[in-house]
Amino acid sequence: MPTNRSWVLAHRPNGMVQETDFELRESAIPKPEAGEILVRTIYCSLDPAMRGWIVDRPSYVPPVRIGEVMRAGGCGEVVKSNNPGFVPGDLVTGMTGWQEYCLSDGSGLMAMRRLAPGTDLRASMGVFSGAGMSAYFGLLDLGQPKAGETVVVSGAAGAVGSVAGQIAKIKGCRTVGIAGSDEKCAWLVDELGFDAAINYKTENVAVRLHETCPDGIDVYFDNVGGPILDMVLAQIRMKARIVLCGGISAYNAEVPPPGPANLMMLVGMRARMEGFIIIDYIPRFPEAGEEMGRWMAEGRLKARDTIVEGIEKAPRALQMLFEGANTGKLLLQVGAEPAG
Amino acid sequence: MPTNRSWVLAHRPNGMVQETDFELRESAIPKPEAGEILVRTIYCSLDPAMRGWIVDRPSYVPPVRIGEVMRAGGCGEVVKSNNPGFVPGDLVTGMTGWQEYCLSDGSGLMAMRRLAPGTDLRASMGVFSGAGMSAYFGLLDLGQPKAGETVVVSGAAGAVGSVAGQIAKIKGCRTVGIAGSDEKCAWLVDELGFDAAINYKTENVAVRLHETCPDGIDVYFDNVGGPILDMVLAQIRMKARIVLCGGISAYNAEVPPPGPANLMMLVGMRARMEGFIIIDYIPRFPEAGEEMGRWMAEGRLKARDTIVEGIEKAPRALQMLFEGANTGKLLLQVGAEPAG
Repeated sequence: MPTNRSWVLAHRPNGMVQETDFELRESAIPKPEAGEILVRTIYCSLDPAMRGWIVDRPSYVPPVRIGEVMRAGGCGEVVKSNNPGFVPGDLVTGMTGWQEYCLSDGSGLMAMRRLAPGTDLRASMGVFSGAGMSAYFGLLDLGQPKAGETVVVSGAAGAVGSVAGQIAKIKGCRTVGIAGSDEKCAWLVDELGFDAAINYKTENVAVRLHETCPDGIDVYFDNVGGPILDMVLAQIRMKARIVLCGGISAYNAEVPPPGPANLMMLVGMRARMEGFIIIDYIPRFPEAGEEMGRWMAEGRLKARDTIVEGIEKAPRALQMLFEGANTGKLLLQVGAEPAG
Repeated sequence: MPTNRSWVLAHRPNGMVQETDFELRESAIPKPEAGEILVRTIYCSLDPAMRGWIVDRPSYVPPVRIGEVMRAGGCGEVVKSNNPGFVPGDLVTGMTGWQEYCLSDGSGLMAMRRLAPGTDLRASMGVFSGAGMSAYFGLLDLGQPKAGETVVVSGAAGAVGSVAGQIAKIKGCRTVGIAGSDEKCAWLVDELGFDAAINYKTENVAVRLHETCPDGIDVYFDNVGGPILDMVLAQIRMKARIVLCGGISAYNAEVPPPGPANLMMLVGMRARMEGFIIIDYIPRFPEAGEEMGRWMAEGRLKARDTIVEGIEKAPRALQMLFEGANTGKLLLQVGAEPAG
């Protein structure tokens, strides 16, 4: 008899998230009550924000409770439905969590959105998920890049950064990516069309920024925070916009490290730094999806993902995210894609 | 025979500015060439930005050169004119520098603007100078306070902060000032109408912010940077606006200290931090002057200044500024006001 394996939060992490912070449980596959659907998980998304969800402090969503299934975005297939909005076979996306099967009554945090039949599930978890949407709205709404300007993106080979940099190119900007390996840098320049890429693990980022952005930096799309943000601040141009999408460099720190010493560059350069949370843009996802879909069809926007297979690898996959082991979107494959 | 005493920059300061960084010189009163005017200095303004002008690094104005008269905003009276735009007796304001007499050809950094006869010179150096204008445009354009919101101002008893806080009150905001003495705090609350004031030298600022801003902080008008900025960041509300006017806490530091550890609060709170330089707003000074003049006439906007007398005290006055020895605008009186 098939079972439902799920990872629950065992205790709150101290520093880098560990496999032992979670516990793998096995139980009967749940039965949907009236109004509920049972979803078989196919992919789970690994996102830096998940590190924040397991810390017990006020945030934009309540923290995952100890003993609760680990929260995760994902997609799957409806296998049973007691909800008139869904039929078995429907592809859906929502907060599946780290589990092989989940129940949803279609509301709240557990709301499920139906995907069109034949949807490319991996793309739905990347470019068309919160990651791609963060790139789109963060860059365009907050960064407001203009043709001819210089845009720098950190975490540039990740799910968000790789899309942000490509959109900057589409908008006619000189685009420089910062990433953590020569292979990632080559991908950015050779396949995605970035003008330059900097390997922050082997190169002097300040010097290379100076070389690759000789006129200074107009827009910085920041996924990492930390020392790189500081080095960018030292080289911003007048009226620069810094988009704070995240600060992955410190997500596993128990105490936040000091901020950028060059912060007062914002004064002399009349510059702006602004943060955002992508859930505020959910009502506008369709317009972004349509435009990015067109760019993909035209070959101007490319996506890559890194797949880790098996529900049992979920905590390890989360660690890989913080180690920068992925290129493009990092996904956990929990179940098989539907045949055909 | 009367002479012209002037302070020139002797060498670039190392840490806190010292009197020995300047040299007092005595020379003949200069003679205006064709197109030039000779101005007798009456007041010089002491501004935190002056510390930046004597550091040799790229900025929004070229640094003062070694051996050059120390740059300073000021006002005075035209005593000789070879320029059709001015006649002796005209009151003027501009970059007089630390000297008893200056020449101006009316252009560039040394442009002089004529003041209406009978102008209150001290107010022209305070509320109607770059300081008051910084408060006005920084708060209203960048801070965008709405009635009912909570506004926190640091350096609140200074020339900029005292005006910014009063404008926040005029706009219907709950207003909390942070200043460096009980006397200053009493002035803010009892005379200027701030809702609360925090003495950062004797009180726990984080705790007192929590008490005085129970719903969090919507707008922070920052004149100081440093640890106070960090404590405010920890208590910002959704969509908060942080106006970076300056960071006086670090102006005398040789190496900028680390920035705020709580910077990533900007992400979760979808908040914005923005810097500005008041010279960008010069074309809009008349509209601000008109509105602030009306508020002063109505008794809703009050000004105070602290006067240091004598050109020989100029470097000491600049130190006093960084020691927070002034309440309201700090002015150096170089010469007598015109009789009558």
